[in-house]
Amino acid sequence: MKVLHADFGTDSYDIFLERGCLQKAGEYLNLDRKVLVITDSGVPSVYAKTIRSFCKEGYISTIPAGEKSKNFEQYSHLLHDLVRYGFSRKDCIVACGGGVVGDLAGFVASTYMRGIDFYNVPTTTIAQTDSSIGGKCAIDFDGYKNIIGSFYQPKAVLVDMDTFMTQSRRALVSGLAEAIKTGLIGDRELFEIFERGEAFDKIDEVVYRSLKFKRDVIVEDPKEKGIRAILNFGHTIGHAIEAAADFKLYHGECVGIGMVKITDDEALKNRIINVLKMYDLPTDFDYDKSKAMDALKHDKKGQAKNTKIIKVNEVGKAEIEIVKTESLRQYL
Amino acid sequence: MKVLHADFGTDSYDIFLERGCLQKAGEYLNLDRKVLVITDSGVPSVYAKTIRSFCKEGYISTIPAGEKSKNFEQYSHLLHDLVRYGFSRKDCIVACGGGVVGDLAGFVASTYMRGIDFYNVPTTTIAQTDSSIGGKCAIDFDGYKNIIGSFYQPKAVLVDMDTFMTQSRRALVSGLAEAIKTGLIGDRELFEIFERGEAFDKIDEVVYRSLKFKRDVIVEDPKEKGIRAILNFGHTIGHAIEAAADFKLYHGECVGIGMVKITDDEALKNRIINVLKMYDLPTDFDYDKSKAMDALKHDKKGQAKNTKIIKVNEVGKAEIEIVKTESLRQYL
Repeated sequence: MKVLHADFGTDSYDIFLERGCLQKAGEYLNLDRKVLVITDSGVPSVYAKTIRSFCKEGYISTIPAGEKSKNFEQYSHLLHDLVRYGFSRKDCIVACGGGVVGDLAGFVASTYMRGIDFYNVPTTTIAQTDSSIGGKCAIDFDGYKNIIGSFYQPKAVLVDMDTFMTQSRRALVSGLAEAIKTGLIGDRELFEIFERGEAFDKIDEVVYRSLKFKRDVIVEDPKEKGIRAILNFGHTIGHAIEAAADFKLYHGECVGIGMVKITDDEALKNRIINVLKMYDLPTDFDYDKSKAMDALKHDKKGQAKNTKIIKVNEVGKAEIEIVKTESLRQYL
Repeated sequence: MKVLHADFGTDSYDIFLERGCLQKAGEYLNLDRKVLVITDSGVPSVYAKTIRSFCKEGYISTIPAGEKSKNFEQYSHLLHDLVRYGFSRKDCIVACGGGVVGDLAGFVASTYMRGIDFYNVPTTTIAQTDSSIGGKCAIDFDGYKNIIGSFYQPKAVLVDMDTFMTQSRRALVSGLAEAIKTGLIGDRELFEIFERGEAFDKIDEVVYRSLKFKRDVIVEDPKEKGIRAILNFGHTIGHAIEAAADFKLYHGECVGIGMVKITDDEALKNRIINVLKMYDLPTDFDYDKSKAMDALKHDKKGQAKNTKIIKVNEVGKAEIEIVKTESLRQYL
């Protein structure tokens, strides 16, 4: 059992990492009340049922798998569920699944009765290494990713690495891209674990190091006023490709391609490409470049002229740069 | 010009009170950006237009007047407006109107891009004496009042008492009920201003004292973990009557009746009745008592067995009591 404490004053919480901890969720989470477990159709239903078995009065709501569920309609459905089951201010929500489930469930929890307790039990690589901590919740709206949402910290995060193997191979390696990113922006040893081909053998360490670095960054800058932006390395280009590819690619896959494209140093670019190939991640994709540029500008909206991008010139060190948005066309 | 500072750490803000300050809104609010002024059809449109005149790029969205606008549909419409006008994280929203406008606009601001700046310019008695400060934003949903929302502090509140006289007489006195409540729970001198029939002559002082007392309470307990509950004096019964009367009565009118009903001491009850009468506020209403009891239980939901109520036995002193919800039937 490893524990990472995230210190946010009165909103502080612990992140528990242990194989098999899902089987004793009741020891870590206060489930002695009404609990809505939110999961998706792609997550083995046994996980949500296991959590429900520890609840005084547990319910499960299952949303369709995929980014498209992060919408206003699902948000509204889940709120209806809470009302229908008579949830009070003292009850809670547990997210059980990947990034989509966490983002949506967190937003529901943050707005029902002006905020009820929320626990995150990530079961996918991407959620376990990245999205389950940090307090960013959101839904997509009017074609914009994550445009409606809030900053809302969970009360605890329970990471059971045993759930890893029930993902598709593609989802599993896609999630690793965020851990590779973490190595590049802040943890050289983590990146070298990937380079040595040891990521699967040392998956517990990969998850721990990823969350530890992210924890340090978000505690320093919870609302992304400054340093937190480095977590977006590969994301500006990545999001544009994700949209241009009409969400046929996974988020992590696009982040991987985005990191390759934004890196100037040829030697480092090749190291990144080699690592992505080693884990069967794509290093490029045949997308419509003008569509990607449109998506990038769309994404930036009001701040259309300039864009904040993250540059890595040396493994483990990230820098924030402000560039002309138009100049990003060269990277697509 | 009087200024009340509300100290919420990094979320601190100032409340400016001055007759005519709306005419120089640009001096108090940072409007040098995109600004969406949200108002309603019952508010003289000149107020929103005045604010817009100070904006670098100002827009006005007008919702239908009345509690019914605090719904999911209006929430979604306003978010669409922000997207359509290309609002970024650095732009802002100004609420210009009463409690409904403030509650809805605040919720929109708190969730667009995970929170953009929000200013409140209350133009009605109820908003100027009570709802414009405190950070409670919400919409109604599935028949429940304020069940979806957030705690989100404004960046500044601009109170121009000159806007008072453009309300209907009924709205004006209805709002005074919240100030009478404030006197009863915490400011004896304020209550005595009402008893002496001086509330209109001393309206600036009434507004100032109401906001000052509320400011002290919300700074001590921003998320209603304890003492803040005293602000709900008269509200448990009041809300039940509001629902049983199918929202034909104004919120303040119901709070007034609720205070009369929940008060045990006969002498004090009579003093409250006398004050309400002096300001043409109702002291009772012919509503369906079983419907009101149903509404009260509905309102309390998960915590159905027990209810927190506020008692005043001496002017200026409130106490929090936990009672059996069923026992509240006697007060209806």
